[in-house]
Amino acid sequence: MDKRTSITMSQTMMPTEANYAGNVHGGEIMKLMDRAAGAAARRYARSNVVTARVDEMQFLYPIFVGAFVICTATVAYVGNTSMEVIVTVDVEDLESEDPPVRALSAFFTMVALDKMGKPKKLPPLSPETEEEKRLFEEGRQRRLARQAK
Amino acid sequence: MDKRTSITMSQTMMPTEANYAGNVHGGEIMKLMDRAAGAAARRYARSNVVTARVDEMQFLYPIFVGAFVICTATVAYVGNTSMEVIVTVDVEDLESEDPPVRALSAFFTMVALDKMGKPKKLPPLSPETEEEKRLFEEGRQRRLARQAK
Amino acid sequence: MDKRTSITMSQTMMPTEANYAGNVHGGEIMKLMDRAAGAAARRYARSNVVTARVDEMQFLYPIFVGAFVICTATVAYVGNTSMEVIVTVDVEDLESEDPPVRALSAFFTMVALDKMGKPKKLPPLSPETEEEKRLFEEGRQRRLARQAK
Amino acid sequence: MDKRTSITMSQTMMPTEANYAGNVHGGEIMKLMDRAAGAAARRYARSNVVTARVDEMQFLYPIFVGAFVICTATVAYVGNTSMEVIVTVDVEDLESEDPPVRALSAFFTMVALDKMGKPKKLPPLSPETEEEKRLFEEGRQRRLARQAK
Amino acid sequence: MDKRTSITMSQTMMPTEANYAGNVHGGEIMKLMDRAAGAAARRYARSNVVTARVDEMQFLYPIFVGAFVICTATVAYVGNTSMEVIVTVDVEDLESEDPPVRALSAFFTMVALDKMGKPKKLPPLSPETEEEKRLFEEGRQRRLARQAK
Amino acid sequence: MDKRTSITMSQTMMPTEANYAGNVHGGEIMKLMDRAAGAAARRYARSNVVTARVDEMQFLYPIFVGAFVICTATVAYVGNTSMEVIVTVDVEDLESEDPPVRALSAFFTMVALDKMGKPKKLPPLSPETEEEKRLFEEGRQRRLARQAK
Repeated sequence: MDKRTSITMSQTMMPTEANYAGNVHGGEIMKLMDRAAGAAARRYARSNVVTARVDEMQFLYPIFVGAFVICTATVAYVGNTSMEVIVTVDVEDLESEDPPVRALSAFFTMVALDKMGKPKKLPPLSPETEEEKRLFEEGRQRRLARQAK
Repeated sequence: MDKRTSITMSQTMMPTEANYAGNVHGGEIMKLMDRAAGAAARRYARSNVVTARVDEMQFLYPIFVGAFVICTATVAYVGNTSMEVIVTVDVEDLESEDPPVRALSAFFTMVALDKMGKPKKLPPLSPETEEEKRLFEEGRQRRLARQAK
Repeated sequence: MDKRTSITMSQTMMPTEANYAGNVHGGEIMKLMDRAAGAAARRYARSNVVTARVDEMQFLYPIFVGAFVICTATVAYVGNTSMEVIVTVDVEDLESEDPPVRALSAFFTMVALDKMGKPKKLPPLSPETEEEKRLFEEGRQRRLARQAK
Repeated sequence: MDKRTSITMSQTMMPTEANYAGNVHGGEIMKLMDRAAGAAARRYARSNVVTARVDEMQFLYPIFVGAFVICTATVAYVGNTSMEVIVTVDVEDLESEDPPVRALSAFFTMVALDKMGKPKKLPPLSPETEEEKRLFEEGRQRRLARQAK
Repeated sequence: MDKRTSITMSQTMMPTEANYAGNVHGGEIMKLMDRAAGAAARRYARSNVVTARVDEMQFLYPIFVGAFVICTATVAYVGNTSMEVIVTVDVEDLESEDPPVRALSAFFTMVALDKMGKPKKLPPLSPETEEEKRLFEEGRQRRLARQAK
Repeated sequence: MDKRTSITMSQTMMPTEANYAGNVHGGEIMKLMDRAAGAAARRYARSNVVTARVDEMQFLYPIFVGAFVICTATVAYVGNTSMEVIVTVDVEDLESEDPPVRALSAFFTMVALDKMGKPKKLPPLSPETEEEKRLFEEGRQRRLARQAK
């Protein structure tokens, strides 16, 4: 698979992003995930992109102030002008020995835009490994299911 | 339906929330929607709440800097400890005569928490009008579909 | 009265807007009131606007983090190129049954600007109900009093 | 006059504080003025303070991104538990030879709070120079006029 | 070398972090570097840390809005209660094929704190590879040079 | 010495700029110092400037939320196209009688840019007092030492 399909963004969560109980707001994490999805899609498309859909965003583990957050975005399926980007968030307590824990996952659908702001044809994605082929096929199935609704 | 099930948040979008092309970032809108979903859920539950899932978030219309944005969150279905909140975003150009346009919609699943941070039993929702009953039944169906995955 | 003379902005107050005692800073509320005054004035003038004066801003009730704040701006009096906008802030504790409480009020004077940044003539405001006529006349009196200083 | 009655805050205005035309929002300047009024009042009272009123805030000169802004807050009149703080804003274009220009002025009424959050008795202010005596007397007159409304 | 000595933080630079010419402010990058140095030091010390010094911060290449920024912090030398952390920033234009370019580098000295906020003894660092040994020795030399001033 | 070589920026530190222990982040202070260095350099050069280096930034005293911070930037040495700006930060507890304490100091090297973004020749600095001559000569020595590395 093209090396440019995956990107990682990471940061320490600050108090400005949390409620009074110390929990980081869901909205702050969504914003980080959207940025990572946008960066991965921009790198694949080599152009500006916009978010078209977000599906099955699941909050699996709470995130607290001070946590180190690792957000990974991978272009898994590419259609004509839109891409499915799988975004995951893992969280690590830097002051402990515990390994990172999966905190969120979601599917972002991103559309590439040309200089005029119109949808732009994407280069095809050619999955190579078994894992890449499985992700691509699952992305294609999800897209068909969404269009059928 | 209980008057407290619906809440509206509105604001003018600022340049700090946009990219260099003047489009407001998807992540900024998601953050606003999460705040509105949280406020509606808190008012229904009379307690702290957290976001558990977001589904079928659709971006239907672009939002530009200076737009007036009206975000409405309605508690449509209530289970044992979780609620489905329907969140919509309408956008109005204050300097024109044009009516507001639907820009986004999504389903948020929120969980009520007690003082110890544990899920808390919710008061049942009793839909009264035909519209309320339809929304409740649809929310119940979506929930069953998500659990079946 | 023209439907477009009044606008409501609402939001939940975040920890980033408060001091260490949990009180939301006066400056944060002023900023919200200025945004609402600007949005109402922009909708009335159908053009860009700037703030020219603020008078009699009264803090009647403290606002705490987590409160739901409802800011309403109403164009009450319209002169040649400037408008008086009455701005009120009500605050609601979403986790209680208590009704909203009036927290602030103020009078904003806004000036409409044309594309060159020069003051622009405004369409006249024709108050219809007794209440609208009273607000208009009071606004006119306050304006005369300010000019006499 | 007590050396601690006056304080100056200054900063360069950033793009995040402006609209798309490069004008700094009135609300951002109000926030800066409120911070300066609060700092001067805290230094005078040696305690926490809250804003009670803002009067006659006048915008005399527009402020653009990149401007150097000098905000001065002076405790001019002290009553039993409240103070009148005169706040002015001057603006300087750092890349020109032009002297600073007065951009805003306003009167802030601040109340000192004790550890329990209750209004706290203030030490009396003893104006010494003619200028201080004039400011004190004018502040006293404005306070009487506000109470008479 | 202990796997926990190095950490990477990455993000896309936003318009809120730039001047009107599109250049990201030096101050914003310094803030990111300080966060990364703090995260690496916290992971090494398994405790809270504070910044004690920053030396030889060099700006080698300008950073523009929209750039993808990769900030790496490595604990290179460990003394009794302080660590030297080498921080580098590389910048990548996601819409081009160009490889990342080194934009900044600096040496941060961080001190570990115990629960009482007092300096805390650190576990010794045992460099293993030739490269690690070289970095360690250079850090020790720099520290001696700073103490000699 | 030219009156325009020195500038002071001051502000109250807000909770958004601190960690959960109430300490203001080093990165926030660096950002303030960079802004002050930039303002002094812009005023001297009467043009846009960029940060080229930061050296010997020392954290001498912790800064807490609510502190009044006074940041002073002085152009001490001027070369052909670059300047050395000495930046100090003093901190004052407004609710006490204690005098301000030196919290940080650093040397910033700033480069003036012309309208095309190219380095621009600076007017020479003519130190007059003994103190100014000492600062100038020390700045010149530091510059030579950096170039020799």
